[in-house]
Amino acid sequence: MGGDFGPRITIPALSLALAQHPILSCILFGDQAEISPYLNKLSPDIQQRIELVHTTKVIEADLPFVQAIRQSKGSSMRLAIEAVENGNAQGCVSGGNTGVLMGLAKQLIEPLPNIDRPALTSLIPTINGNSSVMLDLGANVEADSELLLQFAEMGNVFAEVMLDLVYPRLALLNIGTEEHKGTQQIRDAHQQLKQCNHLNYIGFLEGDKLMNHLADVIVCDGFSGNVALKTLEGAAKNILSLFKKTTEDSHLCRNTKRYLLRLIFYRYYKKLQQINPDRHNGATLLGLSSVVVKSHGGASERAFFYAIDYAKQQIKNNIPTKISQRLILNN
Amino acid sequence: MGGDFGPRITIPALSLALAQHPILSCILFGDQAEISPYLNKLSPDIQQRIELVHTTKVIEADLPFVQAIRQSKGSSMRLAIEAVENGNAQGCVSGGNTGVLMGLAKQLIEPLPNIDRPALTSLIPTINGNSSVMLDLGANVEADSELLLQFAEMGNVFAEVMLDLVYPRLALLNIGTEEHKGTQQIRDAHQQLKQCNHLNYIGFLEGDKLMNHLADVIVCDGFSGNVALKTLEGAAKNILSLFKKTTEDSHLCRNTKRYLLRLIFYRYYKKLQQINPDRHNGATLLGLSSVVVKSHGGASERAFFYAIDYAKQQIKNNIPTKISQRLILNN
Repeated sequence: MGGDFGPRITIPALSLALAQHPILSCILFGDQAEISPYLNKLSPDIQQRIELVHTTKVIEADLPFVQAIRQSKGSSMRLAIEAVENGNAQGCVSGGNTGVLMGLAKQLIEPLPNIDRPALTSLIPTINGNSSVMLDLGANVEADSELLLQFAEMGNVFAEVMLDLVYPRLALLNIGTEEHKGTQQIRDAHQQLKQCNHLNYIGFLEGDKLMNHLADVIVCDGFSGNVALKTLEGAAKNILSLFKKTTEDSHLCRNTKRYLLRLIFYRYYKKLQQINPDRHNGATLLGLSSVVVKSHGGASERAFFYAIDYAKQQIKNNIPTKISQRLILNN
Repeated sequence: MGGDFGPRITIPALSLALAQHPILSCILFGDQAEISPYLNKLSPDIQQRIELVHTTKVIEADLPFVQAIRQSKGSSMRLAIEAVENGNAQGCVSGGNTGVLMGLAKQLIEPLPNIDRPALTSLIPTINGNSSVMLDLGANVEADSELLLQFAEMGNVFAEVMLDLVYPRLALLNIGTEEHKGTQQIRDAHQQLKQCNHLNYIGFLEGDKLMNHLADVIVCDGFSGNVALKTLEGAAKNILSLFKKTTEDSHLCRNTKRYLLRLIFYRYYKKLQQINPDRHNGATLLGLSSVVVKSHGGASERAFFYAIDYAKQQIKNNIPTKISQRLILNN
């Protein structure tokens, strides 16, 4: 039910995901009357792999946090998380209120041992067409050096598995690369990470290098991470939209223009697609014993598909177990 | 002498600024042997308005902060700031080490009354071709609500004068728009700003809206501001460079391509130029009794020209005096 558009987006996105991954099946929580028209359009083969649990209760996107948590019983979001909690589902994807989703997930799903607080984790696009892992993106507005180190450990395993890397390069987001730069927490984490031989720590990274694939894992507190990621997404979306708008306005005949565009800008378009934020939709609450993924509220069908795909990859790769094994190994 | 390229960039940029502003004159501090070849190329009319004060001592860009300040005596950067301190110059522009420039400026130039700490302030490009004022961009890694309020007051006057606005819209950078979002400092500042009737406070702004001209003044602590601005610049530069590179690689004949590009993308290029970070080069240390502007180290000739132009506008408009008058009025 979540997100700005509800089932109109989520059901077609789910259909794409089910078609692409024959091993995938899904439980939907939400209003049958709203969902059924979209479900009925799907092929019987796809419909077979969808179970619908009816509830009309939803958590309103703009409800204050405390109130939302208190009134969450029986809501589609809470039911989905409870399905993960009691083992009926292996992971959960939602486009609803981020704060409430994180609050409920932390309340209901067991945290991993040795992790004080989970971190919102996402893949961010890089200009060469690869991805970097970035965390925390908003779960913790403040983070001491201890917590930053936990984020580093989790991000490291996440990058190994999701990006298929052997020794991921790890960096701390900071406002300069010199040792004296940044807050006390970041400077402390820097000193401690330098001592961690099992991590490939490469030092501080500045905001202007986020897209340059200089690090595979970028660690930060939730406030600056959220600001950085949103700024990145906003800039990319704005610049892409500028491009679209101007080409639409242009005076040349539409078809000629389109042909020329394809000819000249084929590779440019391809590259732009790679940095399209839609492709990187989905943030996972890393540090819990199950996979919980948050999609952008404003996600398109394609973008919501990527969020489902992102959850599926993490479940298939057993990310929570791998993190917990590694933490035991290193403690 | 500052920046990655020294006089090779700064002198031609200065020449542009002097040609454009007949009222402008300039004192240069640096190595005569290095500077003279560039000076000699300028027209006699321009040369007349340049005074050269020779010094071979420079502050190395990567010197640790404490050491740099200690060894600063007689360096080009310190001499420039001293010229402002003793009234020989009305403002100073440097492309050198940001930390050292701020440190020396705070040491040598009197702060404005009622301002605890100055804030690095810049104009940021918006997608509709306008600008917003953003501060702090890195002078204070942490800022309590009191300091954020001072930034708001200064930014407000800065926007009135530099952007010619009557009642600038003022926002706090945050990770959400709901009242409970963000750190305690930001939530406190939010409550206090809501009480300030002389300010047009519009609430929280998220990173993805930075370029959308929803606010004229964006207030934040120096850490998140620095991260956001650098991320914005990095994204813009990266996406623009992607565009350039792909068109260069293309298989079509160079000239034909260039012609087509101009035809189709004239307006697009124009728009891209507006959001080109070069146009917004220059950050001022707002809250001192004189104008001190920091240019990007890697600034091009055009970009350094904008930094000089930015300083000149502030001097001409008497920004420090206007801020101090307003603060007296409101206290």
